[in-house]
Amino acid sequence: MFQKRSASRPTARTGDGLNSVLQKLRDGREGRPGSVHEVLRQVEELELTIKRQPTLRKSLLSMSLKEAYLEVVDLPGREVAAAIEQVMIAVTRNILGGDGFGYSLPCRGSSDQVYLDQLDRIVLKDKHALVTFSSTSSVRKVAVLTRVMQLIHGVLCRGIHVTKRDMFYTDVKLFKNQKDSDAVLDDISCLLGCTRNSLHVVASEKGVVVGKLIYNEDGDEIDCTKMGIGGKAIPSNIDKVGNFRSEAKFILLVEKDAAFMRLAEDRFYNRFPCIIITAKGQPDVATRLFLSKLKRDLCVPVLALVDADPYGLKIISVYMQGSKNMAFDSANLTTPDIKWLGVRPSDLDKFQIPEQCRLEMSAKDIETGQHMLSEEFIQQNPEWVKEVQVMLESKTKAEIQALSSYGFQYLTEIYLPIKLQEGDWI
Amino acid sequence: MFQKRSASRPTARTGDGLNSVLQKLRDGREGRPGSVHEVLRQVEELELTIKRQPTLRKSLLSMSLKEAYLEVVDLPGREVAAAIEQVMIAVTRNILGGDGFGYSLPCRGSSDQVYLDQLDRIVLKDKHALVTFSSTSSVRKVAVLTRVMQLIHGVLCRGIHVTKRDMFYTDVKLFKNQKDSDAVLDDISCLLGCTRNSLHVVASEKGVVVGKLIYNEDGDEIDCTKMGIGGKAIPSNIDKVGNFRSEAKFILLVEKDAAFMRLAEDRFYNRFPCIIITAKGQPDVATRLFLSKLKRDLCVPVLALVDADPYGLKIISVYMQGSKNMAFDSANLTTPDIKWLGVRPSDLDKFQIPEQCRLEMSAKDIETGQHMLSEEFIQQNPEWVKEVQVMLESKTKAEIQALSSYGFQYLTEIYLPIKLQEGDWI
Repeated sequence: MFQKRSASRPTARTGDGLNSVLQKLRDGREGRPGSVHEVLRQVEELELTIKRQPTLRKSLLSMSLKEAYLEVVDLPGREVAAAIEQVMIAVTRNILGGDGFGYSLPCRGSSDQVYLDQLDRIVLKDKHALVTFSSTSSVRKVAVLTRVMQLIHGVLCRGIHVTKRDMFYTDVKLFKNQKDSDAVLDDISCLLGCTRNSLHVVASEKGVVVGKLIYNEDGDEIDCTKMGIGGKAIPSNIDKVGNFRSEAKFILLVEKDAAFMRLAEDRFYNRFPCIIITAKGQPDVATRLFLSKLKRDLCVPVLALVDADPYGLKIISVYMQGSKNMAFDSANLTTPDIKWLGVRPSDLDKFQIPEQCRLEMSAKDIETGQHMLSEEFIQQNPEWVKEVQVMLESKTKAEIQALSSYGFQYLTEIYLPIKLQEGDWI
Repeated sequence: MFQKRSASRPTARTGDGLNSVLQKLRDGREGRPGSVHEVLRQVEELELTIKRQPTLRKSLLSMSLKEAYLEVVDLPGREVAAAIEQVMIAVTRNILGGDGFGYSLPCRGSSDQVYLDQLDRIVLKDKHALVTFSSTSSVRKVAVLTRVMQLIHGVLCRGIHVTKRDMFYTDVKLFKNQKDSDAVLDDISCLLGCTRNSLHVVASEKGVVVGKLIYNEDGDEIDCTKMGIGGKAIPSNIDKVGNFRSEAKFILLVEKDAAFMRLAEDRFYNRFPCIIITAKGQPDVATRLFLSKLKRDLCVPVLALVDADPYGLKIISVYMQGSKNMAFDSANLTTPDIKWLGVRPSDLDKFQIPEQCRLEMSAKDIETGQHMLSEEFIQQNPEWVKEVQVMLESKTKAEIQALSSYGFQYLTEIYLPIKLQEGDWI
């Protein structure tokens, strides 16, 4: 009934001890996971492995791939402003030299995107195309590009942040449609070699954080242990966030608001030192940037708690791998090596979730699941493949809240401590 | 071009002085609103009016309407638990007396809802109907009611909070559909005479707060002046929130995340002491409860900054009046006397918002607008009626971000200070 361990997992297991704990639970007796030390032993081992890894993040530069592929980096505002000035000087020289007005832009189509094994990320091929002011097909794009760069230069010089919608409204006559001003932002990102976030054009925020973390946000010291039960809203201006200090052993990435609330109200992080983050569903850019920065700076494991359905796994993949249309920015947006803690399809039998709390998969669910099996990202991890197969064979899924069938606090008092103690992540 | 004032407004106006400020702005010269003191004078007068009002909130009890109408109140957990025990003792007595098993539930249909002028809220008529275990049509409802009351009793005794989804999963076999367990929550609320929130069954949160406010949340002291730019997430467990301390002159209620971000980044609240709140669109229960409690405790004006479209006004109405299916809980959920600061339809001409930043209203927008004109809530305020008429005649609407056409910080540096200085709210 317990999930089979692959031989490659090096850490010690306490699965047999747990069998009896679970049995007691099923018998209705008060079964409890071990002491805090026992629960955290496996996590601490994982943490050590991560901390021992070279802290330098793999980049195209460090892999000597800089010539063939393209990726953007976080740059301070004044450097981005300087880069815009450089582009404009070059353009002016071209015009004065009789070569006309235009930009050489990196290509971002799907055929230009490539998954690099060495980096475990999607990046862009280093291929450029010329857009000129003299061609009727691109005259508008060149005008929009130039205007948006001018606006961004202004934003950077004032040191503020704006949204895409704000940007659109500054020149509706030229942009006509917000899609037009949005589209060139990614072009400008690639052209300047900086992240979208470095342009100070930000998305709206919906993530929340709570737990063993103290950091600075725009000059304010934020203590996430003292954020009540609602937590701290994760800001969209990630470049004003830094100086992370934490005694957390791991980061718990939660798909849903309801589970986050349970963990925050029970002050789970006080018993098991951790940082709890949720984007309340599909991850937004701000939460992904925050998690990525947190993982890089703290070097602690990231464990994911998602629904046992194809979308739960999809959410992990967005955090880990990014979405395809932001390929060039994947290094900053992605968090490698997230462990799938639960709720996994095999957990349903392992924790004997009652039949009536499991949901039947729809035809679309099954299709999404099957599509996932063919993805390189999933195939890399045989244990993930096995879980997706379990899901597809049983044709059932379950939400995190299905654990409430054993009591509202089963999640924080039994399920998570047992999963941690067992090191039951893949 | 300036909006006409109704003769009934008692406060002094500085409209003429502003004419020249606006003129300078249009001429491209550096026009700026007056000093902080000048900008805040009108707000302070409004604050005094509010503080002078009797602090006792109108209730059915205070209006001697307790006999004819029904409303629920916030109760501490132990009192709700005691009320459940009382209900169960009464039920047991009935069974032992040979009268069978059943509950006398308040009716909550639309014909049972009535808008009370004296309270400026929707309440329920005091009408009851018997649901019995002996009738095939209600046997299931009685079983579900009993089980949910048992679960809530457990939650209250543990002092925790759960979501509706958690509740559903504790007994899927009985509830079958989440709608069935959700529906009885409002019945139980009315039966026990307590708010939904007192049952410790909470909704998910999406609101954020920042500004001149210090308060306690589950034992933690939250200082909203030190919440960076992301702000503090408003918790769904409002009963763990309290001890508000503030030097704010007003509460600025913002429809959208983007405007909130601008205000937070520019630290608007440091220049003009205020508390800034947003629910990021349609207001959720947690944000409405938070605002209502804040207004009651601090007695400061609430000024709304919403889009100049029918939905902007709709959002104000939800905060002020509540939604019809929660009629019985309207006293706790609603915030009376919110002032519509902007962006109002008449602002589009007043601030000369460029034509291309105004949007054409769709057929559905116009229909919604026309429907609003017939609502009692709007009709009570002739100035609101006038604004809706302006919108419908021009057939145009605009978003808050349309103000960005004058520059990204026009909102915080010009528009809001001018609106405040003029006392231009209705």
